[in-house]
Amino acid sequence: MSVRTETYNQLVEYLKNLALLRSCGSVLGWDEQTNLPPKGAEHRANQLAVLAGLSHDLATDPVLGELFEKLSDPASVGGEETEAFANVRDAKRAYDRSGKLPKKLVEELSRTTTLSQHAWVESRKKKDFSVFQPWLEKVINLKREEADALGSETGVKYDALIEDYEPGATAAQIQSVFTPLREALVELVNAIRNSERTPDISILERQYPVDAQEKFSIQAATAIGFDFSAGRLDIAAHPFCSGFGPGDCRLTTRYDEHHFPGAFFGTLHEAGHGIYEQGLTDENFGLATGEACSLGIHESQSRMWENLVGRSRSFWDHFYAPAQQNFPAAIGDVHIDDFYAAINDVRPSWIRVEADEVTYNLHIMLRFQLEQAMMNGDLNAADVPAAWNELFTEFFGMTPTDDSIGCLQDVHWSAGLIGYFPTYSLGNMYASQIFEKAKEDLGDLNAMFARGEFLPLKEWLNKNIHQHGRRYYAPELVEVVTGKPLSSEPLLKHLKGKFGAVYGL
Amino acid sequence: MSVRTETYNQLVEYLKNLALLRSCGSVLGWDEQTNLPPKGAEHRANQLAVLAGLSHDLATDPVLGELFEKLSDPASVGGEETEAFANVRDAKRAYDRSGKLPKKLVEELSRTTTLSQHAWVESRKKKDFSVFQPWLEKVINLKREEADALGSETGVKYDALIEDYEPGATAAQIQSVFTPLREALVELVNAIRNSERTPDISILERQYPVDAQEKFSIQAATAIGFDFSAGRLDIAAHPFCSGFGPGDCRLTTRYDEHHFPGAFFGTLHEAGHGIYEQGLTDENFGLATGEACSLGIHESQSRMWENLVGRSRSFWDHFYAPAQQNFPAAIGDVHIDDFYAAINDVRPSWIRVEADEVTYNLHIMLRFQLEQAMMNGDLNAADVPAAWNELFTEFFGMTPTDDSIGCLQDVHWSAGLIGYFPTYSLGNMYASQIFEKAKEDLGDLNAMFARGEFLPLKEWLNKNIHQHGRRYYAPELVEVVTGKPLSSEPLLKHLKGKFGAVYGL
Repeated sequence: MSVRTETYNQLVEYLKNLALLRSCGSVLGWDEQTNLPPKGAEHRANQLAVLAGLSHDLATDPVLGELFEKLSDPASVGGEETEAFANVRDAKRAYDRSGKLPKKLVEELSRTTTLSQHAWVESRKKKDFSVFQPWLEKVINLKREEADALGSETGVKYDALIEDYEPGATAAQIQSVFTPLREALVELVNAIRNSERTPDISILERQYPVDAQEKFSIQAATAIGFDFSAGRLDIAAHPFCSGFGPGDCRLTTRYDEHHFPGAFFGTLHEAGHGIYEQGLTDENFGLATGEACSLGIHESQSRMWENLVGRSRSFWDHFYAPAQQNFPAAIGDVHIDDFYAAINDVRPSWIRVEADEVTYNLHIMLRFQLEQAMMNGDLNAADVPAAWNELFTEFFGMTPTDDSIGCLQDVHWSAGLIGYFPTYSLGNMYASQIFEKAKEDLGDLNAMFARGEFLPLKEWLNKNIHQHGRRYYAPELVEVVTGKPLSSEPLLKHLKGKFGAVYGL
Repeated sequence: MSVRTETYNQLVEYLKNLALLRSCGSVLGWDEQTNLPPKGAEHRANQLAVLAGLSHDLATDPVLGELFEKLSDPASVGGEETEAFANVRDAKRAYDRSGKLPKKLVEELSRTTTLSQHAWVESRKKKDFSVFQPWLEKVINLKREEADALGSETGVKYDALIEDYEPGATAAQIQSVFTPLREALVELVNAIRNSERTPDISILERQYPVDAQEKFSIQAATAIGFDFSAGRLDIAAHPFCSGFGPGDCRLTTRYDEHHFPGAFFGTLHEAGHGIYEQGLTDENFGLATGEACSLGIHESQSRMWENLVGRSRSFWDHFYAPAQQNFPAAIGDVHIDDFYAAINDVRPSWIRVEADEVTYNLHIMLRFQLEQAMMNGDLNAADVPAAWNELFTEFFGMTPTDDSIGCLQDVHWSAGLIGYFPTYSLGNMYASQIFEKAKEDLGDLNAMFARGEFLPLKEWLNKNIHQHGRRYYAPELVEVVTGKPLSSEPLLKHLKGKFGAVYGL
């Protein structure tokens, strides 16, 4: 074995151990949401803090810097085209990033965002923004400080923060796809509002027994390719997917006996994330080539299965008969056309997480605009509610009656997750663009779905998206896969086509 | 703050972090038994190995040795009577012990016992001792090597190993209580065998719906004082209790619709362990004064609630009516006397974990005798089956028909847990001796149980046993609590009194 290979192997072992340690934190985090007895909360926080501290120590250990130094010549890992080069580059990027943040700032951010989330919960509950305002101010200042410490190629503070969620993306690039999307969406929403069709969504609020919902959700998640021998579905207050590592990926959902779409589409969504995690290359666990590309690409997988597949007519051509068998009291007498229209109801609403496929992206653009203003100094915490309501009125034609259904609805800002929101809409756009390419390669996907054949798409995604891991960053990956840079066109084409038919536009 | 106090505080923080890290391993271990998807086994082993490695590094870090050096004068922690002194002494003992084991031996033991357990599973399944024999030989040799490396005050190898489970105990001391116990037990078993009464145990094999078993088990565990807001009860193949730390203690059990005692007494047993864990002092987590005393004392708590309370007549005077309500089909028409006799059936049997209160201890003594012979060089792996069968015939008057119900029945030896078995019988003896003292202090416990009052006993245990943690080692604790050294008399008195009445001796 050459000395160079030995150094690379040392790095790989180091990174795998670090990832293993972090994945222990994932197990504890999952357990916290699914199983923790109430009195165990403080101990769990202490356990997670110890793991986080040890992970941080490992991630910033100078021994890593020495390994990168020895591997600084691309030739030492076989050249720039190799997987090894991508693994080293990505790990070095993370190491350099950690090194730029003063420990004092990291600790202050951690402490502030923990307390800030408590304040946010109270503020939201009391519908009183003033409780959260001083904390939001602190978070904004600390995130600006963090952005300065990290720096970015563009010199734009917001870009330094996006890098944590969507490596390689910039606010300007995102804006360039958001702008045409927004105009077209506002137009589409107006057309739908003026349409004479109004789906009867009350059929989704009939009685759907929880046991049958669970059984049917698992049946659908299995059909689209989630492997339950390498994963689980449990109940949690907030649905999520947590991939612990090879062979173990956990989904959660929540059931409401009188609201069918919540658990069902939620499970398809999380199963989409899970299929991505399960599609990563096991032996590359802990390395860029074995980890998810970005939050945007992750979201593209969940949205594709939830919306492009799960809310498609062809999906229900296959699944409506079993659905009627599972929920005879609720939809035994409902025609598939009415059910399909109901699950595709579009209307402006206050809450992002409950929004439909069309209006959802407007919720994101509003947040994107406000976040940029906070970061570049144009928007203070105190002015957030007014700015929110003004934009909301512009986008949706209605004004929030209080801040709990306005600027206090999401946890993200209190948790310091600024730069995260755009990845949701990027996910929608990536999904449509990738889905178009899959259709080109695989032929009539809708005919397959109607026959209950979902694995060709799943396997295509395994090969074209999942197996690359983070070898390419998202903007490059989408070009490698589809041959084109990211565009809002495929999403718009999908939305106009689908909802044009549903609403007879 | 004096420099000395600062050093002690540093030690406390270090030990708490170490305990927190280890408790993360407990969470992953629990999850492995309760929730792990089949394909996640290898990843889980890797996660646990990383945690074990980091824990080992922390536990043997020379920085700890320096702290002990600075605290070597008892006056530096306020004198030998303080809790701080006990905490330092116990932590130093563990540190010194770790330091005596060469890393090579630790790794070899770890690797060998992992592989050995796989061989044991196969050997037991095939009822073929020859598969396990070479592995048992390796384990015996490594454990002898380990005993030599650790050393003991008595110079007896076995004593060096017991120290891991029952600090302060020796084989000679255990033998001195086992000898009179064995003679009396053999006599009692013979008397029972010659009695004309034979309980009808088939009533325990009628239909006990699993849902009702779970509900009733939780009801009973709650009544005796297990706090479900700081714990849970889940299903696992092998019942256990895992205390993660303050506010979080998990019990597991397994249900058989046609065997009532398994899950019910199993849950009471694990709840007994859990009540001990929940009774430890939260702020001393990670320190001797906040951790369980020994396996023997732990077992005394589980056996007390399972047998001395749960299999008592007075317990069922309170719980039989609700039991009949929960299982009307099985025991609606069964008289309490017949039920009570059935759950106290005594007869020689092959399998330790299914044995009754009386014969159980004979199973332990057999293993204790063989283990000592292995360690002092008088018994080779190849001769274990013959030695087992000879002793079994002597103790029980019947000879195992194959090794799967003989020397291959327990996992312990394959896992390298030599010196562990005696703690089960020590637990039984500690339980009776402590229970006698509780009766002296609290008055007529049976009358309380019959009224459904279990908390006086639970609180007495909290105060007299749990709150001390490991401040005293077991032999000293039992003297502090009961005023006398450990004796087999209280256990014998209990067994003779109870089974004399059940069997009309």
